[in-house]
Amino acid sequence: MDIKKLLKPKKVAVIGASEKEGFGGDTCRNIIRYMKPGDYYFINPKRDQVQGVRCYPSISDLPEPVELLVIATPMSTVEGFLREGAEKGVRGAVVFASGYGEVGTEEGTEAENQLKSLCQELDIALMGPNCAGYANYVDMIYPYAFISNERDRKGAVGVVSQSGQLVLSMMEAASIRFSYAISSGNGKITTIEDYLDFLVDDEDTQVIALYMEGSKQPSKLASVLKKAALKHKPIVVLKTGRSEKGQALAASHTGSLSGSDKVFDALFDKFGVLRVDDLEELISTAQALAVLKKLPESSGFSSISLSGGETGICADLGQIIGLTYPDFSEKTVKALEAILPGYATVNNPLDSTASLSYDIDKFASVCEAVMKDPSVGIVSIGYTLLEEISDNAIYYISEALGRVMKEEWAKPCLMLPFAENTRNSDYVKKLESIGVPVLPTSLYALKIIKHILDFSCYKPEDHNLEVAVLTNPALRESDCNTRSALTESESKKMIQRYGIDCGIFEVARSREEAGELFSRLNLRKAVAKVDSPDILHKSDVGCVILGLKSPEEAMEAYDTILENAAKHFEHPDIRGVQICNMADKGTEVILGVNNDPQFGPCVLVGLGGVFVEIFKDTSMALAPVSKAEADNMIRSLKSFRILDGYRGTPKGDIDALSDAIVLISEMAAERADDLAELDINPVFVYEKGICAVDALYIKQ
Amino acid sequence: MDIKKLLKPKKVAVIGASEKEGFGGDTCRNIIRYMKPGDYYFINPKRDQVQGVRCYPSISDLPEPVELLVIATPMSTVEGFLREGAEKGVRGAVVFASGYGEVGTEEGTEAENQLKSLCQELDIALMGPNCAGYANYVDMIYPYAFISNERDRKGAVGVVSQSGQLVLSMMEAASIRFSYAISSGNGKITTIEDYLDFLVDDEDTQVIALYMEGSKQPSKLASVLKKAALKHKPIVVLKTGRSEKGQALAASHTGSLSGSDKVFDALFDKFGVLRVDDLEELISTAQALAVLKKLPESSGFSSISLSGGETGICADLGQIIGLTYPDFSEKTVKALEAILPGYATVNNPLDSTASLSYDIDKFASVCEAVMKDPSVGIVSIGYTLLEEISDNAIYYISEALGRVMKEEWAKPCLMLPFAENTRNSDYVKKLESIGVPVLPTSLYALKIIKHILDFSCYKPEDHNLEVAVLTNPALRESDCNTRSALTESESKKMIQRYGIDCGIFEVARSREEAGELFSRLNLRKAVAKVDSPDILHKSDVGCVILGLKSPEEAMEAYDTILENAAKHFEHPDIRGVQICNMADKGTEVILGVNNDPQFGPCVLVGLGGVFVEIFKDTSMALAPVSKAEADNMIRSLKSFRILDGYRGTPKGDIDALSDAIVLISEMAAERADDLAELDINPVFVYEKGICAVDALYIKQ
Repeated sequence: MDIKKLLKPKKVAVIGASEKEGFGGDTCRNIIRYMKPGDYYFINPKRDQVQGVRCYPSISDLPEPVELLVIATPMSTVEGFLREGAEKGVRGAVVFASGYGEVGTEEGTEAENQLKSLCQELDIALMGPNCAGYANYVDMIYPYAFISNERDRKGAVGVVSQSGQLVLSMMEAASIRFSYAISSGNGKITTIEDYLDFLVDDEDTQVIALYMEGSKQPSKLASVLKKAALKHKPIVVLKTGRSEKGQALAASHTGSLSGSDKVFDALFDKFGVLRVDDLEELISTAQALAVLKKLPESSGFSSISLSGGETGICADLGQIIGLTYPDFSEKTVKALEAILPGYATVNNPLDSTASLSYDIDKFASVCEAVMKDPSVGIVSIGYTLLEEISDNAIYYISEALGRVMKEEWAKPCLMLPFAENTRNSDYVKKLESIGVPVLPTSLYALKIIKHILDFSCYKPEDHNLEVAVLTNPALRESDCNTRSALTESESKKMIQRYGIDCGIFEVARSREEAGELFSRLNLRKAVAKVDSPDILHKSDVGCVILGLKSPEEAMEAYDTILENAAKHFEHPDIRGVQICNMADKGTEVILGVNNDPQFGPCVLVGLGGVFVEIFKDTSMALAPVSKAEADNMIRSLKSFRILDGYRGTPKGDIDALSDAIVLISEMAAERADDLAELDINPVFVYEKGICAVDALYIKQ
Repeated sequence: MDIKKLLKPKKVAVIGASEKEGFGGDTCRNIIRYMKPGDYYFINPKRDQVQGVRCYPSISDLPEPVELLVIATPMSTVEGFLREGAEKGVRGAVVFASGYGEVGTEEGTEAENQLKSLCQELDIALMGPNCAGYANYVDMIYPYAFISNERDRKGAVGVVSQSGQLVLSMMEAASIRFSYAISSGNGKITTIEDYLDFLVDDEDTQVIALYMEGSKQPSKLASVLKKAALKHKPIVVLKTGRSEKGQALAASHTGSLSGSDKVFDALFDKFGVLRVDDLEELISTAQALAVLKKLPESSGFSSISLSGGETGICADLGQIIGLTYPDFSEKTVKALEAILPGYATVNNPLDSTASLSYDIDKFASVCEAVMKDPSVGIVSIGYTLLEEISDNAIYYISEALGRVMKEEWAKPCLMLPFAENTRNSDYVKKLESIGVPVLPTSLYALKIIKHILDFSCYKPEDHNLEVAVLTNPALRESDCNTRSALTESESKKMIQRYGIDCGIFEVARSREEAGELFSRLNLRKAVAKVDSPDILHKSDVGCVILGLKSPEEAMEAYDTILENAAKHFEHPDIRGVQICNMADKGTEVILGVNNDPQFGPCVLVGLGGVFVEIFKDTSMALAPVSKAEADNMIRSLKSFRILDGYRGTPKGDIDALSDAIVLISEMAAERADDLAELDINPVFVYEKGICAVDALYIKQ
């Protein structure tokens, strides 16, 4: 199937052309309005003409082959038209009809599966069913079923959305301009991953905006995101399902299999994808990235506003959102003091005072001074651009910016308004033409600036992009129920093989062997623990005995443990009693792996006890991870300070811990077809080295 | 001084009337446009006429007394005009001139102090200096210096702002409508507290929107907020200075003494004031509260949207922002299933499907079913209202809402758009007239709904509103430097007097007394600690000895402690050695008091160690607090679960702890003129009762 036949067809035919409001009629209205006559045909056996355009009775009657068939008739008619079309050269189809997988019935799912087979048989790339079609602004192809107001929409953002309504809202928004706007519908035949793949390759698309509820092709999604990361093409994504309510909804809605939402965060982090919280943030982040002519080269932010109040808002909100305002260099301060009036205070964020907004030269000089500061990577100009212009400050400011943005030293610059009253479209165009995006009000604006900085700071080489879902073809395909636990000693042997220090331990099969091991392993202080796949919470049932000081004590412990096990379990599968060297206490860390049914293993780290359990203070990343990723996981813990030498306790060996994370993540990726879950708890982190004291490996 | 002469004057005169752009000319333009001829006079000795209006050469030449003088001339002229005006009946003045306290020079501050004295002498309420004036939409009085577009601005929000630019932006915003819009300027003569006081009493003002950088009259601010709380009149506040950068700016800007920002949070919490993060949130929260005809009676939220994507956004963002979507009752589910198409899933948040938006009856029935659900207190309708109407769904929806909102069972309802494209003003008016506010896009919208719920859940009777700044006239007035510490035993005796259990302890003045105390106090296990105001970190210098089991050990400890003290300090002031009963270990809690130079003592609670130090997990409230406030402080800790019986450790005595918070807060309020800081660390919390093991009381 060739997606280009669907998205860039030579000729288009509409089945179900009509005068009425609704899918057929509105699609014809759009096509007539936006496409060149001769590029499309309307088909309706009952009419000679629709909306002034000649109508053909059937596909077969068309005077020439067509590549794209737009089917605006009910589901029962779809198969026939596709078969007839295939004969006439059709290789792409848009199907609006609903009644398929999205209704949640067996019949619906079956119908969609049949449609998929049919498309494979006929080699047709099909958009939908249950979609709103698409608009291709590059070649002006418009098989799209919703009407919206006339405005200039041709631009560089490629949109893919699992929701047709959200595509419509994006078209109705004032600011975003598109290369393609695609409503994927159920997306089981041509998938959102297929569209993404197309847009990542597409030269006319500079930024991709994606609305998704879940993925049907996790491996393809990962490979497309990887391609985009390596090309440094920005993808902005609104994915619902972050909350429990949202997760339930997403699962019920387009019938997507929605994996754990946190895994998507790990996926997006790995590939530098920007995740946003709502549609306005999606629209405006994508459009800002498309308008900017270059990306920031350092992460320092400077905001220039015309009043103290606005400057205060930027200072506070910026900090809440996580932006950094570096102090200006001495040179910058001097330059600014020379331009600004005496009562101004030179600071970053900068209150340039209102006086400046009526003086092109001075305003340009202030921008120049700020942009030339080496610590500044990106600049915002605080100004509330109104629909109706009543104050000519905007004239002076935009003139000044026009001059500034031509210079080689110019840095990325955005307009930041404080009150919503849309934005005068002439000025928006003027500013966008010089590479200055106009943002929505401050709460969004500062989040968007943070996204831009995050994207420009992302370096694919810092990440291990060979995620298991790409490299391990045997990755399990669903959440299977045949999980079985290894014993602690087996689990530790497994991770030992991959390079994790687990201290000295061996399993005694008899009372005597327990004593012998104590001597043979040359222990001074030992711990005895039951070794059984059935007994997971060993301490709670008296199956761990600490502080053994002699072979005799080890032998006694052997008996006690077996007795205690017998008290609590009927016929437990006991492989023996582990005799381990009793490790010195270090800072307790938890290392774990979860194997996501869609995206494969994720590795997780956190400080033991309340930090994980109450503060939920953990970092997660898709396996395998690079050393830099592992290090960043540790440093992004809120409790990192405890590891880093808190209150006189020695500094933990971060290097050894991050090595362990890398090794575990590599093991998890390699064993993605075998490992369901791994819990190493605790790992003791010492001043030098680490030791995994307990481990539980659960097989699929 | 009578603020009504300033804000509701009978006649107004403008000094410095002019044709030109700028303060004088633009104020005249506004006055001519908005006020009744005959209500104002223009004064300019050089002209007979300004903008077609007759000009008088001086105040004395006016044909009748005027109450308000608007001075648009430079600062050097202000005193003369005020004196002349006072003779002509002037009791209010608006002064635009800058050059006073805001420039940060001694001369400026002195000039402002003189102006203040002059106003007191002449009994003139003065707005400014360095302000933009005000607009009174109730009586249409318009001594305001900035021009903005024509739109209907008369409404019920009273605005006070320390920034003139932000008043202008609010006037330029599309949605908010005002009773008063006041740019206070430096606000040292008539203060923001005075304006607030006026607006709280004003019957034409339903909601107050405040922009502030700091307070110059903390006691008046508290008393005004208390009045508003008791009247249940909403105050929405944007206060800058949350971040370090913002704090520094606010301090430098209007020259406000800006206290610790966290104290403002405590102040706002106590009085039910809603704090927002930017101007758009201020505008739209205030306007929404003004438009709603009633407040929610329960905190359950329901969102109705037309598509799955929009519903997903509401689900996720709602949870992030802290809203609760209660599950619908069985009755509601049945009612909705009967109305919605078969493929719809009935859930809260609700995807009502787009089909419904073209059917007035069905849409109204869906609203009815949702609003009648007993767990639902407030409802949002997701719909992107555009400037230019291209889809007539809005007609059907607004018709349906018009019908619904008339019913007795109607609940507060708001429109929530997903993409910014302003909002058609006719529909906004129509919706507002039936009590349905139209919100900005979702990120703001859901925050605003949370504010509305917070406000409607606030009950003044849950709070102790008699804060120290109101009741203790001797509250210290500035951060004085004459702090002196009490010894531990003195500190404990002090809090013991207020009812806090500190265990058994007494101070030995000699080696022998140490032994005697051990016996007399009937101790089994004791601790010896140095008692000195000079030695604060006693353990670090060997001045605490634990686990003493006999009078002899106590005597020995006495000597050791004195020796250790002598090693580390030259001539420390040592009052003796405390002999204390060694308390059993409980959960460690920190209780503290900070006496804010502006708002008096705040009481603070947190779990000891890393929880306070690394996770900054503390709750703070303005003293004194009620039992309900104390209980809420404890329960709002993230680490509350540890106190509440975590992992088999016994449940701590929350009741005893909250009693202690109340007692300490009452002590702090009573001693606000003496107490600088109190640190009770740790307090052990047991299954039954608590014990304060160490305390440090610092006097001012």
